[in-house]
Amino acid sequence: MKLAHFFFPVTLAILLATTFSSDPDSLQDLCVADLSSGDGYDAQGHYILHHALSPCVSVNGFTCKAASKVNVTDFSSNILAKPGSTNNTFGSVVTGANVQKVPGLNTLGVSLSRIDYAPGGLNPPHTHPRATEVVFVLEGQLDVGFITTANVLISKTINKGEIFVFPKGLVHFQKNNANVPAAVLSAFNSQLPGTQSIATTLFAATPSVPDNVLTKTFQVGTKEVEKIKSRLATKK
Amino acid sequence: MKLAHFFFPVTLAILLATTFSSDPDSLQDLCVADLSSGDGYDAQGHYILHHALSPCVSVNGFTCKAASKVNVTDFSSNILAKPGSTNNTFGSVVTGANVQKVPGLNTLGVSLSRIDYAPGGLNPPHTHPRATEVVFVLEGQLDVGFITTANVLISKTINKGEIFVFPKGLVHFQKNNANVPAAVLSAFNSQLPGTQSIATTLFAATPSVPDNVLTKTFQVGTKEVEKIKSRLATKK
Amino acid sequence: MKLAHFFFPVTLAILLATTFSSDPDSLQDLCVADLSSGDGYDAQGHYILHHALSPCVSVNGFTCKAASKVNVTDFSSNILAKPGSTNNTFGSVVTGANVQKVPGLNTLGVSLSRIDYAPGGLNPPHTHPRATEVVFVLEGQLDVGFITTANVLISKTINKGEIFVFPKGLVHFQKNNANVPAAVLSAFNSQLPGTQSIATTLFAATPSVPDNVLTKTFQVGTKEVEKIKSRLATKK
Amino acid sequence: MKLAHFFFPVTLAILLATTFSSDPDSLQDLCVADLSSGDGYDAQGHYILHHALSPCVSVNGFTCKAASKVNVTDFSSNILAKPGSTNNTFGSVVTGANVQKVPGLNTLGVSLSRIDYAPGGLNPPHTHPRATEVVFVLEGQLDVGFITTANVLISKTINKGEIFVFPKGLVHFQKNNANVPAAVLSAFNSQLPGTQSIATTLFAATPSVPDNVLTKTFQVGTKEVEKIKSRLATKK
Amino acid sequence: MKLAHFFFPVTLAILLATTFSSDPDSLQDLCVADLSSGDGYDAQGHYILHHALSPCVSVNGFTCKAASKVNVTDFSSNILAKPGSTNNTFGSVVTGANVQKVPGLNTLGVSLSRIDYAPGGLNPPHTHPRATEVVFVLEGQLDVGFITTANVLISKTINKGEIFVFPKGLVHFQKNNANVPAAVLSAFNSQLPGTQSIATTLFAATPSVPDNVLTKTFQVGTKEVEKIKSRLATKK
Amino acid sequence: MKLAHFFFPVTLAILLATTFSSDPDSLQDLCVADLSSGDGYDAQGHYILHHALSPCVSVNGFTCKAASKVNVTDFSSNILAKPGSTNNTFGSVVTGANVQKVPGLNTLGVSLSRIDYAPGGLNPPHTHPRATEVVFVLEGQLDVGFITTANVLISKTINKGEIFVFPKGLVHFQKNNANVPAAVLSAFNSQLPGTQSIATTLFAATPSVPDNVLTKTFQVGTKEVEKIKSRLATKK
Repeated sequence: MKLAHFFFPVTLAILLATTFSSDPDSLQDLCVADLSSGDGYDAQGHYILHHALSPCVSVNGFTCKAASKVNVTDFSSNILAKPGSTNNTFGSVVTGANVQKVPGLNTLGVSLSRIDYAPGGLNPPHTHPRATEVVFVLEGQLDVGFITTANVLISKTINKGEIFVFPKGLVHFQKNNANVPAAVLSAFNSQLPGTQSIATTLFAATPSVPDNVLTKTFQVGTKEVEKIKSRLATKK
Repeated sequence: MKLAHFFFPVTLAILLATTFSSDPDSLQDLCVADLSSGDGYDAQGHYILHHALSPCVSVNGFTCKAASKVNVTDFSSNILAKPGSTNNTFGSVVTGANVQKVPGLNTLGVSLSRIDYAPGGLNPPHTHPRATEVVFVLEGQLDVGFITTANVLISKTINKGEIFVFPKGLVHFQKNNANVPAAVLSAFNSQLPGTQSIATTLFAATPSVPDNVLTKTFQVGTKEVEKIKSRLATKK
Repeated sequence: MKLAHFFFPVTLAILLATTFSSDPDSLQDLCVADLSSGDGYDAQGHYILHHALSPCVSVNGFTCKAASKVNVTDFSSNILAKPGSTNNTFGSVVTGANVQKVPGLNTLGVSLSRIDYAPGGLNPPHTHPRATEVVFVLEGQLDVGFITTANVLISKTINKGEIFVFPKGLVHFQKNNANVPAAVLSAFNSQLPGTQSIATTLFAATPSVPDNVLTKTFQVGTKEVEKIKSRLATKK
Repeated sequence: MKLAHFFFPVTLAILLATTFSSDPDSLQDLCVADLSSGDGYDAQGHYILHHALSPCVSVNGFTCKAASKVNVTDFSSNILAKPGSTNNTFGSVVTGANVQKVPGLNTLGVSLSRIDYAPGGLNPPHTHPRATEVVFVLEGQLDVGFITTANVLISKTINKGEIFVFPKGLVHFQKNNANVPAAVLSAFNSQLPGTQSIATTLFAATPSVPDNVLTKTFQVGTKEVEKIKSRLATKK
Repeated sequence: MKLAHFFFPVTLAILLATTFSSDPDSLQDLCVADLSSGDGYDAQGHYILHHALSPCVSVNGFTCKAASKVNVTDFSSNILAKPGSTNNTFGSVVTGANVQKVPGLNTLGVSLSRIDYAPGGLNPPHTHPRATEVVFVLEGQLDVGFITTANVLISKTINKGEIFVFPKGLVHFQKNNANVPAAVLSAFNSQLPGTQSIATTLFAATPSVPDNVLTKTFQVGTKEVEKIKSRLATKK
Repeated sequence: MKLAHFFFPVTLAILLATTFSSDPDSLQDLCVADLSSGDGYDAQGHYILHHALSPCVSVNGFTCKAASKVNVTDFSSNILAKPGSTNNTFGSVVTGANVQKVPGLNTLGVSLSRIDYAPGGLNPPHTHPRATEVVFVLEGQLDVGFITTANVLISKTINKGEIFVFPKGLVHFQKNNANVPAAVLSAFNSQLPGTQSIATTLFAATPSVPDNVLTKTFQVGTKEVEKIKSRLATKK
């Protein structure tokens, strides 16, 4: 079987997204992100090219706004104040307060997220390739865990007010096995930590990962692979 | 006037304390801190020498525990679950969940704190020299601000659920001007962010900063300097 | 369902393994790894504690050998000269020439691997959380690809003499769809790049990742999950 | 009391100024600063926007000059050859040979300053948040010191030809208690080390730090705070 | 003797070339080099200014291509598939697959080269100032070595399939003392490792290094210096 | 011709010496070097093994002294106060105030040197592989220069009070062409910048760099090579 070799220009609108690093150091007090200088997503979640916004240049991270356009609101946000809607397949939702939402974070190497979980909700196994995450339980109870590269699961049930560490780059998850909603605040040592969700990465990429890779990886047949693909197709 | 030149061995028990950096990267999955490998404070806040604890070696950060001593509790803590006591001069208290309390954070470059404020309470102007801080308001309302090296104050009133960014190394403060208690969760991009509180640094160090430095710095007389020294002396 | 909470000391022998970073810089010409200073695996692949080898200390990376024990062979190896055996479930084998095998690489931030593939062989989807990989095809032909965090598959068929880049932290794979063996040389910007193989991470960890996490993640039933677990159980 | 919340555009002309880091590494031999690419101060010390100078882009640090505009003078300067005027309140003056004056330093992570002191002159307590400083006494004698985060003052009298280290981010000062002028050369591990002078940061920022923050911080009354403010107002 | 002081604009076309670092971390998945954003060489090896190619900006490393222009071929190359011509004075040739040839390597901190050697061929003593190199022998046999800053030569004869480490910044060489051609693949932990070849640096720079520097350095007369200069003049 | 392959234990006493990096960040206020924790030179310049001094451990950089042994003198030195003797072949001498002499510099990433030059004296071409150097002329006049990897010499005559930048890793030199002595103070962004002097590296290493490497490198005969070797032999 041959790969359907993908050329970017055909379906380019979903490419460059997240971050991968303990970020390089800043070289001045502030370098508030000029959000038109990088690629991103619009309010509807569609990918947009910065070149539609700016005639100039895209760099590692973001260029700096002119000082005349910097405002105290660049350093603040109320985006994490309210729970997000968990009315979806996984019963969980991540709301990011990263450099894309709080431009004052540019070059400063830290960001926050809020995660809400319905009863039974799951934040499915994923990695933040270059950031460690520390969660603080705002409400409820969660079963959380990470797996080391030696395939050891480190897991615990954590309650309101407790914290838990997910080391940089390791696969981890949180599951609300209680009957009431739960919520955490997450801290990352990156301005844009990025997320690679394992199941959708393998079963819902565009173009598709070849079936013969997936059947050999999971030691199952094409039928099972197609079943998972169809069920995750609408979760992208 | 001559400085009272200080030689460490005389009063050594209060020396090495906090962190100063966007931390270097880790070189394995985990390197759980062997807390006996660095200097620190005991449960009563007294400084202790690691050499009283360990016959071996102190390094930049902490050495790693033997794998046989690593436990899931190294990655978790409930130290931030309850408000700390704000019954003190400033009406505020910082509780740190850094590598000294959560040894699994060693080499991972991130940590959390909780800050509680009585009505009228102040977290006085201070720096975290090598970490940016992002606060999330758990309860109440705070007037917060930081000052750039160009002497511009960037300030805002933030309410429950809002976040605010204090860029790396800049002097900042939080003041609860409301009638009810307030609390924030703070995220730092360092395993041990360190704090240099401005007033106590200048007016309550041991040995004392010479009076002729302080009078010239603040353009006041010795009497005013002595007054501030006496009032801050018991706040250490 | 409750997690079977794992405490390390019970099954500790498989913990600390791989690397996660663009490594910190060196502070002298050479710091040849004293391999007894870190945790590792013995010749049979069993995990060993450094404390059985050394009375002293484990640090981020490895401590340095005494100069009197440094030898030119610390900087060389023939471990990559011969193909490894591909007689296993995936039909592929990775042979690493990292700091654990070439102690002179300690603090220098680079390493090599050789990967051999039987006809039909697969190096299944995995991440190297803190290293980019560049492969050079020594023999044969491979279908290779990586998936971005925006779920775009970037893939290509590469032939003898061609190179391909797998960016830091992103899930990637190589599949030999030809009728003859293939082999690549891989370069990494880390002294110990680490590997988290997706399928075995989720379906063959110890203790097990809970079934209700896996069924919800892949949107299948317990039966399918158990089937994959049993087939991958012997592949660890 | 409410903060006078500051919005940048109103008084924007004094914002972004100094540096905060052990700088990121360079990616080519030279990247001579295009000084029109960042914000800065003009010859009269007034803040200028790069957008008045350049139609293009501001980044972390500075963009690189075109090779055709690079000259040997970009790597040299005589700005430190002569003592600066110490005819001011503090009796001291800092002359910086950083990237703003020596554009060849861009991306190279080091810079120099010269500090001159009148008899009795003081370089008042300040921080360089992301650079360590090492001074070499060119002339005279100085009483110097830094305070650790554990509030220990480390101080010494140093004479011509002696050096002294001020660790990264810690508050430090130099006082000329002799009857003759003094001068030092300072080395920093940053291309633009930045300075946050404690007294002017707290008592002479724009807008003002609220009085109730300052009275509580120093445990004095509003009268004393206003007195210090008025005396430092003209020292900005 | 006075130096012929060089001003860049006169002969500017050969200036900025190679890299000097364990590169800073990336801040998003991909930042494919827009090769028109930096200075470089054209297909004939002539230096070209980016300003002839692009109206915009040059940064540390390269700016990022617009996502719409990114293609799978940015991550691949067959430039190393065939031996280069060794028909030159030294009997060796280096072919680089760095960011200038594989733009997808931008911000990712790693690259490859291939070196071919005629019988008797020499890759003369040189440094890669900010990258460690690891070679893998593709064909033949080589005598290789590096010299530490304590002037110790570490050398070995390596054969097909063997690897050897040349630590960051140290002078090293490879010599084919066999009767058949040899070839290696080299891995570097930098996107553009750079090369400073010792003999041509000293004896074939433009303008010339002054004769009185070279005679004193090598403790020989002007005649010997001129002889070496003339023989290396055509090797640039 | 075969290399005389060197095994370290035979002549080990001259191995590990200098530094190679923009140093990693510190993780606490201070980590004063325990100089017995690394390899070094004794007062007579003989290499000593740390294992003769300490029963414990050698790490990247140095381990930290116990707080009880830290003293203000760890942060100061008068080693640069007096000119060194220039009564040698090159007519110049470098005196380093690096971490080996000022242990308080450990983890802080900066150091100083003083260089003295007799009339006609030369600091011969050399590299500091991972530090940029900035010199400040204390006395006299110097002709200084560096060569880029594109073989461009950037040179200038500098006088008392002037500064000049030598970018990281590039070959550079200073020559006193005047009739009076000269002296500079040098700043480096590394705690131990290291020096690889080109001529002695190639012509005076132990064991020797093979003659057939040197004759081919400089395009001269064995006679000339042997002549240079004999003249530099006593300069080590």
